[in-house]
Amino acid sequence: MNNPPATPPARRLRAGMVGGGRGSFIGAVHRMAAELDGQALLVAGALSSDPQVAHASAADWLLERAYTSYEEMARAEAAARGIDFVIIATPNHLHSPVAQAFLAAGIHVVCDKPLALTVAEGEALARHVADGRALFALTHAYAGYPAVRQARDMVRGGQLGSLRKVMVEYTQDWLMDPVERHGNKQAEWRTDPARAGLGGCVGDIGTHAAHLLEFVTGCPIEALCADLSAVVPGRRLDDDANILLRLQGGARGTLVCSQVACGEDNRLALRVYGSQAGLEWHQQEPNTLLYKPAGRPWQRLATGQRYLSAAAQAASRVPAGHPEGYLEAFANLYRAFIADVRRAQRGETPVRDYPGVEDGLRGLRFVAAAVESSRRGSAWVTVQG
Amino acid sequence: MNNPPATPPARRLRAGMVGGGRGSFIGAVHRMAAELDGQALLVAGALSSDPQVAHASAADWLLERAYTSYEEMARAEAAARGIDFVIIATPNHLHSPVAQAFLAAGIHVVCDKPLALTVAEGEALARHVADGRALFALTHAYAGYPAVRQARDMVRGGQLGSLRKVMVEYTQDWLMDPVERHGNKQAEWRTDPARAGLGGCVGDIGTHAAHLLEFVTGCPIEALCADLSAVVPGRRLDDDANILLRLQGGARGTLVCSQVACGEDNRLALRVYGSQAGLEWHQQEPNTLLYKPAGRPWQRLATGQRYLSAAAQAASRVPAGHPEGYLEAFANLYRAFIADVRRAQRGETPVRDYPGVEDGLRGLRFVAAAVESSRRGSAWVTVQG
Amino acid sequence: MNNPPATPPARRLRAGMVGGGRGSFIGAVHRMAAELDGQALLVAGALSSDPQVAHASAADWLLERAYTSYEEMARAEAAARGIDFVIIATPNHLHSPVAQAFLAAGIHVVCDKPLALTVAEGEALARHVADGRALFALTHAYAGYPAVRQARDMVRGGQLGSLRKVMVEYTQDWLMDPVERHGNKQAEWRTDPARAGLGGCVGDIGTHAAHLLEFVTGCPIEALCADLSAVVPGRRLDDDANILLRLQGGARGTLVCSQVACGEDNRLALRVYGSQAGLEWHQQEPNTLLYKPAGRPWQRLATGQRYLSAAAQAASRVPAGHPEGYLEAFANLYRAFIADVRRAQRGETPVRDYPGVEDGLRGLRFVAAAVESSRRGSAWVTVQG
Amino acid sequence: MNNPPATPPARRLRAGMVGGGRGSFIGAVHRMAAELDGQALLVAGALSSDPQVAHASAADWLLERAYTSYEEMARAEAAARGIDFVIIATPNHLHSPVAQAFLAAGIHVVCDKPLALTVAEGEALARHVADGRALFALTHAYAGYPAVRQARDMVRGGQLGSLRKVMVEYTQDWLMDPVERHGNKQAEWRTDPARAGLGGCVGDIGTHAAHLLEFVTGCPIEALCADLSAVVPGRRLDDDANILLRLQGGARGTLVCSQVACGEDNRLALRVYGSQAGLEWHQQEPNTLLYKPAGRPWQRLATGQRYLSAAAQAASRVPAGHPEGYLEAFANLYRAFIADVRRAQRGETPVRDYPGVEDGLRGLRFVAAAVESSRRGSAWVTVQG
Repeated sequence: MNNPPATPPARRLRAGMVGGGRGSFIGAVHRMAAELDGQALLVAGALSSDPQVAHASAADWLLERAYTSYEEMARAEAAARGIDFVIIATPNHLHSPVAQAFLAAGIHVVCDKPLALTVAEGEALARHVADGRALFALTHAYAGYPAVRQARDMVRGGQLGSLRKVMVEYTQDWLMDPVERHGNKQAEWRTDPARAGLGGCVGDIGTHAAHLLEFVTGCPIEALCADLSAVVPGRRLDDDANILLRLQGGARGTLVCSQVACGEDNRLALRVYGSQAGLEWHQQEPNTLLYKPAGRPWQRLATGQRYLSAAAQAASRVPAGHPEGYLEAFANLYRAFIADVRRAQRGETPVRDYPGVEDGLRGLRFVAAAVESSRRGSAWVTVQG
Repeated sequence: MNNPPATPPARRLRAGMVGGGRGSFIGAVHRMAAELDGQALLVAGALSSDPQVAHASAADWLLERAYTSYEEMARAEAAARGIDFVIIATPNHLHSPVAQAFLAAGIHVVCDKPLALTVAEGEALARHVADGRALFALTHAYAGYPAVRQARDMVRGGQLGSLRKVMVEYTQDWLMDPVERHGNKQAEWRTDPARAGLGGCVGDIGTHAAHLLEFVTGCPIEALCADLSAVVPGRRLDDDANILLRLQGGARGTLVCSQVACGEDNRLALRVYGSQAGLEWHQQEPNTLLYKPAGRPWQRLATGQRYLSAAAQAASRVPAGHPEGYLEAFANLYRAFIADVRRAQRGETPVRDYPGVEDGLRGLRFVAAAVESSRRGSAWVTVQG
Repeated sequence: MNNPPATPPARRLRAGMVGGGRGSFIGAVHRMAAELDGQALLVAGALSSDPQVAHASAADWLLERAYTSYEEMARAEAAARGIDFVIIATPNHLHSPVAQAFLAAGIHVVCDKPLALTVAEGEALARHVADGRALFALTHAYAGYPAVRQARDMVRGGQLGSLRKVMVEYTQDWLMDPVERHGNKQAEWRTDPARAGLGGCVGDIGTHAAHLLEFVTGCPIEALCADLSAVVPGRRLDDDANILLRLQGGARGTLVCSQVACGEDNRLALRVYGSQAGLEWHQQEPNTLLYKPAGRPWQRLATGQRYLSAAAQAASRVPAGHPEGYLEAFANLYRAFIADVRRAQRGETPVRDYPGVEDGLRGLRFVAAAVESSRRGSAWVTVQG
Repeated sequence: MNNPPATPPARRLRAGMVGGGRGSFIGAVHRMAAELDGQALLVAGALSSDPQVAHASAADWLLERAYTSYEEMARAEAAARGIDFVIIATPNHLHSPVAQAFLAAGIHVVCDKPLALTVAEGEALARHVADGRALFALTHAYAGYPAVRQARDMVRGGQLGSLRKVMVEYTQDWLMDPVERHGNKQAEWRTDPARAGLGGCVGDIGTHAAHLLEFVTGCPIEALCADLSAVVPGRRLDDDANILLRLQGGARGTLVCSQVACGEDNRLALRVYGSQAGLEWHQQEPNTLLYKPAGRPWQRLATGQRYLSAAAQAASRVPAGHPEGYLEAFANLYRAFIADVRRAQRGETPVRDYPGVEDGLRGLRFVAAAVESSRRGSAWVTVQG
């Protein structure tokens, strides 16, 4: 090695994780996404409440420090100035307590959605975050897709005219049978009100659809009229929802989510229609965006191209034409969050270009409104601002 | 010519048309569809109430007899035993009176949808048809696609298990601007309650979506919860509708229709999800049907193939792999209707394998329910059986 | 009927057909296409050399006059001033003799491709046609698609810049097994050099691909380098071909055709790349055309739209968004041909906006060159002008 | 941290890189792919021969050790037992010298393709690798896609029957203008025979297409007949190639590659047709594979599903339905390579489940044959085994 730079080089941030060990869907996604840009390393974790699983999972990932208690982890890492931020990948009911513990320890937090089990719990967490001692990101990862950023920039830039109509959908089929009664751990907690919250499907994926819609349009859902079902007999939370929407600014539309739509994996799709053009995006073909200007041919915008907005271009990592996917979208949230951690460490003001507690609160209020509407025979219910 | 057959050869049926002259969307479609199989010839018409247009249109089509009054046409053709059946391609408000006139004259009728302006008017017409003197077909043409017939046969045959969820859509954009105020004749009557009826978009194309859904599933829409809009300021009828559905048998879902969805031509699409499989069909790719059995790869069924149901195979006219379209689907209704006319002429019992007055009544009741639901703040409204 | 026009009205032209009866792929397609616009009626036919089949087929189609000999038909129809034109839908070896018979009788001819069995036979027929007593059309039907006409107009109008690269393909699988040895009549003659000609697959569908390519680009294939195979053991003609192309003007590319490509129905696809843009069209999605301008988003042009060329717009029969298919494309050739017959009957000069003998000769020379190249170890062979 | 495991935990491997600094397409891809599974960290690099760029690039990536000479890096890292393996991401002419340097130092090598500039140079390198002191991987990354592994397993497992026909394509447009004369560094060396080798497009991406084809089919290309062009005037290497193929086992087909195909980014697509079924895969929709069994509907296999082969399932990192892309495919090669490095470090026999020198030699021989064939007027040339 020759000619070392005079100033001490930056180092990769150190990250920890709570939850997300063996058997988790999302833990590995967080790890890969957090590390993808070479700016962070996962070094510690309380990956499971089961000590065996916690240690085995930590060994799988070559972690330096394995915990079996998140409270202990928060204390120890804060004391040792170990990790720079923590990732929360537990079932829903632990999101808020874990976040509170690390925030209290002054450690920045990346939390899987939803923010909390209830609106009240979410509001308490939001107040804590507002103290400003630590940063907080919520991983509505679909907002990280380059084509979604392009869509947002086109809508916000007026290329659709005034918005009139929206259609958003997130359908899956993994709960089409009562798998929660046959050993599927993911299904067990997701269909248990005590661990999942008020909403089943509407909370688990409906909130992603709602977030995507609001992220792209910039128009909050003002009111909704919902028909929630538990299609699988005996299920205690909804597994399918059909919802009419009214957005601030006057657009109307539908939000459909389901976890019993046989044959669908993760069909997340958004359409927005304005007075001058329409837009369409499908997660299954994530690297293209359809733009439909009135009276002219449809355009198929492709990620990685120079005609895209700066934000959309910045969200791609590989040359145009090489497909990118969910991990890279997820990593775009981490990239923005890590940049904010760097800023905070330098004493600069964070930019917060990622979903945060406000997005989490909106999600909780959306679920509460949907559940209330459905209970009231699909009455129109206002989503609290 | 040698060896003529001993029995007198069958001849092509003679057809007439009311409405459908120059400037009509649908008149030419009816003509081509009626004649496609070489079993009928259009020979007479009252193609417009404007005598100039009526004669010019008749000349365009080389008709033998041109009328300017449908009443006169019904009388004259009946007296001369001229046409075997009449095609009604007028604006909506004339469907019922014209049908009544020809039925009264003992002439079989093919009528564009809707059946009538109101449920009451439709019921009166239905009673007339029930007299049985003449046959009556209503051109819900989308039911004629081979892939739609395959879908119906798969659902009815149990290949989806019990139905759980449906999504049907028909979106267009041709009314996204107030074209009815700038000389578009088609738009003028379609946005005029006196000529179009209670429903705008929901009547014009929502009824097609509803028919397609019920045709494929065999499950009538029991109740709906609708949000209808007139997006274009000053428009008197809805041009956009978002509707929650509950079907007999327990499936739920959404029906979305719009004539202001910028960039969409005629996006008619249907998805049906059952306990064992899902189905998906798009008019824009009409010759394929997606079948999604649980836990197995999606299958893409193609029209013209021998693995299809007998009805689906019979609905194709060209070798597999040569695309067919809307005209051929439309012609499949005419094929079945013409076969019934032949049966009637031979004194046999008609088979009625095409939409008829009952379908028309269901359409009118669907529109009435949607309008009532929307007026009552998206209350659930039962669709009368 | 009131107010008849003073001049005698035009009547539908009368058409006859040779070949095309029961068991034929293409006879019914010709009938429907010829009649689609209401300008012609099929009234006579020598639909089979088997008298039984000939009469049964004529009865199916309600023909007025059935023949079992095309020579007799030509004589009788000419004598009686019966048909205005004849359609030739026989196996290939009869194309030229039948055409000669009707041309000699002064009856206009629409002939299925290929023109003849050999270049020499085709040249003789071309000389006959050049006499000018009767019109001659060759049904390279793919040229009739609206999107293909749009492609042609864009290329010819310079929207691609100078052409550099082409890729054209026509793949099927119906000969993937030795069906000609198990009773498939279509396969029998198509794999028999005496009835099909020099080329098997390359003649049957390779010529369609070559015609489509030259039609769109306006650049004749100058030379080719071919590798023809008989994949199915014992087959005497090629059933698969891979061909390198050099086009006049400098573009190079590939032509692939196959009748043993398992799973393909009629996958006809064309791509053209120029110095400023590319184009892509697929028969399986016939109503759209992809346009790829350098450095900008792809555009998806849709048929029926006002932004298309006049010729492309004129080639659609139904409102935008209603899919059209192969029959309608085929009918566009008949529309142009029938207009020419009208012109000829009025003593006007024909316009010849449909493929003719020159196209047929080019096809025969293409096949001859491909066969010669393959025999010579894939040597480059010039396609005779 | 509590309860540490008794045996010392495994650590992440340490990696270095030569080339790949700022301005490189592929360096960042290698870094992300190598690190994705959390089993390796990039810590050292000679990222550019320009010292400024080398240090700036190393700082971008937070490397611990930055070199400006790969020879020095090889010496120093070997002496210090620093890195476990090196990644070579330089222009082509340095692949072999750099690889030789690190192999000589006993350091495992991951090398971008091609193996070398010439067959002779590649053979020398292959002999060196055969010594067995160090492992060698060549990043034909497309072999890493889950759907490609599924395709391979289906072909090898006989699900297509005997292979008959192949079509493979890799088209781009980034060299459609003479960008090498206007400051594009990537284009400069790729169009320079001294740095790129014998082949331009055919070497840069044609080799990827050839590798994909052979990887999936298991059938080496026996002979080819090529037409190479330099479409852009003044370019010294081919930028477009059309090639006829004959594969061991009897299948024939085409390989098309281009860097002047306007509008194409990285259109890599493969079709394989057998006596019982066909397969189709497109990089642009990488997570699906089309399977076309004779006489039955097409099947669309999706990655992440349990019906896939074990190898295909193992190649996915996220739940089914979340799209994956090029990075993840690339990372699958690194995963297998890193597992081999672990094996080598434990004294076990490597498994070599990734492309290696033999694949590199096949690529060089393919390019040599294509160039020779084209020079000889598209003569058939045998590809040396």
